[in-house]
Amino acid sequence: MKDNISKSIRSNFQVSYQYDVFFTKHLFSFDNLILKEFFHSQTEYQFNKKVLVVIDQGFLNHQPNLIESIHQYFASKIEAVQLVEEFIVLPGGEVSKNQIEDWEMVVSAINKYGIDRHSYIMVIGGGAILDMVGYAASVSHRGIRLIRIPTTVLSQNDSGVGVKNSINYYGKKNFLGTFAPPVAVFNDSSFLVSLEDRDWRSGMAEAIKVSLIKDKDFFNWIELNVSKLTKRELDAMEYLVFECARLHMDHIKNGDPFEFGSSRPLDFGHWFAHKLEYVSNFSIRHGEAVAIGMALDSIYSFLSGNLKEPELNRILKLLKGLGFTLNHPMLQLNGKTQLAIALQEFQEHLGGKLTLLMLDGIGIPKEIYTIDHSLLETAFEQLVRHN
Amino acid sequence: MKDNISKSIRSNFQVSYQYDVFFTKHLFSFDNLILKEFFHSQTEYQFNKKVLVVIDQGFLNHQPNLIESIHQYFASKIEAVQLVEEFIVLPGGEVSKNQIEDWEMVVSAINKYGIDRHSYIMVIGGGAILDMVGYAASVSHRGIRLIRIPTTVLSQNDSGVGVKNSINYYGKKNFLGTFAPPVAVFNDSSFLVSLEDRDWRSGMAEAIKVSLIKDKDFFNWIELNVSKLTKRELDAMEYLVFECARLHMDHIKNGDPFEFGSSRPLDFGHWFAHKLEYVSNFSIRHGEAVAIGMALDSIYSFLSGNLKEPELNRILKLLKGLGFTLNHPMLQLNGKTQLAIALQEFQEHLGGKLTLLMLDGIGIPKEIYTIDHSLLETAFEQLVRHN
Ligand SMILES: NC(=O)c1ccc[n+]([C@@H]2O[C@H](COP(=O)([O-])OP(=O)(O)OC[C@H]3O[C@@H](n4cnc5c(N)ncnc54)[C@H](O)[C@@H]3O)[C@@H](O)[C@H]2O)c1
Ligand SMILES: NC(=O)c1ccc[n+]([C@@H]2O[C@H](COP(=O)([O-])OP(=O)(O)OC[C@H]3O[C@@H](n4cnc5c(N)ncnc54)[C@H](O)[C@@H]3O)[C@@H](O)[C@H]2O)c1
Ligand SMILES: [Zn+2]
Ligand SMILES: [Zn+2]
Repeated sequence: MKDNISKSIRSNFQVSYQYDVFFTKHLFSFDNLILKEFFHSQTEYQFNKKVLVVIDQGFLNHQPNLIESIHQYFASKIEAVQLVEEFIVLPGGEVSKNQIEDWEMVVSAINKYGIDRHSYIMVIGGGAILDMVGYAASVSHRGIRLIRIPTTVLSQNDSGVGVKNSINYYGKKNFLGTFAPPVAVFNDSSFLVSLEDRDWRSGMAEAIKVSLIKDKDFFNWIELNVSKLTKRELDAMEYLVFECARLHMDHIKNGDPFEFGSSRPLDFGHWFAHKLEYVSNFSIRHGEAVAIGMALDSIYSFLSGNLKEPELNRILKLLKGLGFTLNHPMLQLNGKTQLAIALQEFQEHLGGKLTLLMLDGIGIPKEIYTIDHSLLETAFEQLVRHN
Repeated sequence: MKDNISKSIRSNFQVSYQYDVFFTKHLFSFDNLILKEFFHSQTEYQFNKKVLVVIDQGFLNHQPNLIESIHQYFASKIEAVQLVEEFIVLPGGEVSKNQIEDWEMVVSAINKYGIDRHSYIMVIGGGAILDMVGYAASVSHRGIRLIRIPTTVLSQNDSGVGVKNSINYYGKKNFLGTFAPPVAVFNDSSFLVSLEDRDWRSGMAEAIKVSLIKDKDFFNWIELNVSKLTKRELDAMEYLVFECARLHMDHIKNGDPFEFGSSRPLDFGHWFAHKLEYVSNFSIRHGEAVAIGMALDSIYSFLSGNLKEPELNRILKLLKGLGFTLNHPMLQLNGKTQLAIALQEFQEHLGGKLTLLMLDGIGIPKEIYTIDHSLLETAFEQLVRHN
């Protein structure tokens, strides 16, 4: 080769992913065949596949017979795979993403039990433990098959049906992680009955979000069903979870699943929410923060002449009707400073170029690229006067 | 939802990857514009992109001006990105994949310098450090852009142009890792001149492998150029690296890039090689082990009536001509036991069903699903009598 005369070879290829999200009830009861059918639909029978189960302690506390039922279900119904006798039980909630020891425990169980790329990890719990175990599975042997069984509203309608996994590191949320789709997700609505009210409510914020930017009919439906939802009627929640999951999955599929680009169109109401979660040291739940963030952005959308006042009022009324607090005490402290910082951090996060999602109407999103700071402060003042 | 009446939603989507592998000389010299052009071809100028550089100490030892040249090159030619002042220099070789501290150092630099998903990590070195840094990059912020600058024959013609990253964990080779393509690879042939003879030679094993299973013309070419290659003529090595990389990339692109299936058709000669590397505690280089593995599988292919004797002899002669030792002292110890164990482990690794690649001729691969153990022992006996 002559100096500086260069050649090149291009590599370009596509990788296909496919997985099903099942909506069911009493997943491990004897007459529910959905899990059995899933395993039997998986090909390559000759392989010695194993299943390692990881369970969220906070969920298990409400399900004294869970471990027993799973053992019985597998013993009586599933020949295609071999259940690892010992289950891994770990505390749920954000702590599982903060403690590297918990992640390490999953990786070490993968090693100990010889779980390979043809085997499965089945994780049962809230969004936090799903994220952590998903991350462990996706990097062990460069990727073990992951089955998610989400047990919170948020994880059934949003985080658990998507493609992201992560843990927190250096005190930074989701610092380490992967884009790695599961092989299947099983949403069992009966698992939701033991949730604390806050978690039941909090998960509904994502449904409102997705309805506001994608589906007015769904917004109308939520509005009509506020009282059923607050009274914790399971039928209503099942519909909400299904619709929200469907819209969310639709978005992933037709968008940029692994987020190579820079737009984040599903993140309506999230830029300020992230900041709120942080400054409250995560004492404000994700959905609670998102509710506040959506209220703020809706008010701004109205003030900037896009969203109409009656629609703004419907949005605020729905959020309050479901029990969300919009004028959180946190906002009274040094809210405006936090607001400015949040905006700047979000801009940096996007790599310098601001893109925010606002509303032109219910179900009609609008991207904006500059923000009127004084108008934003006005929106903030109106927000804290609420409730 | 009625009990046990289940619904489901299917998610299926494709993710597209594209990257170029450039073949050049004197990458950081002032009149070489290839790196400049790469950065300027990257879109999204408005973003504050950074480049964090990680260098293999073992390579840097031979390149006293490297750091200075890179600084000057970026300062004078590249406005689109901002070079992080401090370079990370780490020991090269397998140790970099064994010590979690080295991986941690890269991740912590990503944190410290605020390297985000729009920024780059540029790693310069052998296959080991490329694997380790690639793994750190691929999980930080769920994936930072990776530029690989491989400096060994093996990494320029095989490992560095592919899609795999990893570190060793629990003493197990590549236990943690990801499939994550780079955004670009720059192969600079002038970087190869300082290699130890063993590393120069060892990398050629992958070229022979790929010629044996994919391209007889390439095999013929290597045969004709044995003397140039052993005399370390750079022109000949450039051709070998280019052809090997091309065939390797072709295979990835048209195959199963992220290895979701179970066949591993590029792994000719590798099943026994992996065992040899292990039992020698990696004192046998990968390529050296692969040469032995290919010799064994070629002899077996002949004994089982597939490969013709003259072709077998050409293969063995080529391997020896390039300086590979086929009757390594390691084989004398308890070779046959290791052979049996290796075969069993490989079968387990595949999930129970054995698939081995053998040869029907030079350039003509043949998959087999059972092996004749006594014939394999005979092949082994013939192997250890060689040289
Ligand atoms: N991966 C993604 O795309 C994505 C998206 C949004 C949020 N998230 C993550 O999800 C996490 C939040 O998840 P979450 O809202 O599901 O909460 P969580 O996982 O933090 O769980 C909250 C609490 O509920 C308990 N719990 C779980 N299921 C229960 C049940 N059925 N009954 C009673 N208690 C139960 C848990 O033990 C925990 O104490 C955050 O870490 C967030 O970053 C991830
Ligand atoms: N990712 C993949 O697909 C893949 C495929 C095959 C092998 N690998 C991995 O590659 C690694 C082996 O890589 P390798 O063979 O490149 O060796 P290496 O990275 O282990 O380097 C060998 C030695 O050469 C030194 N060195 C590097 N460049 C030099 C130069 N130009 N001049 C002088 N010394 C130099 C290094 O410091 C090191 O001491 C293994 O860890 C193996 O697992 C990865
Ligand atoms: Zn959210
Ligand atoms: Zn190899």
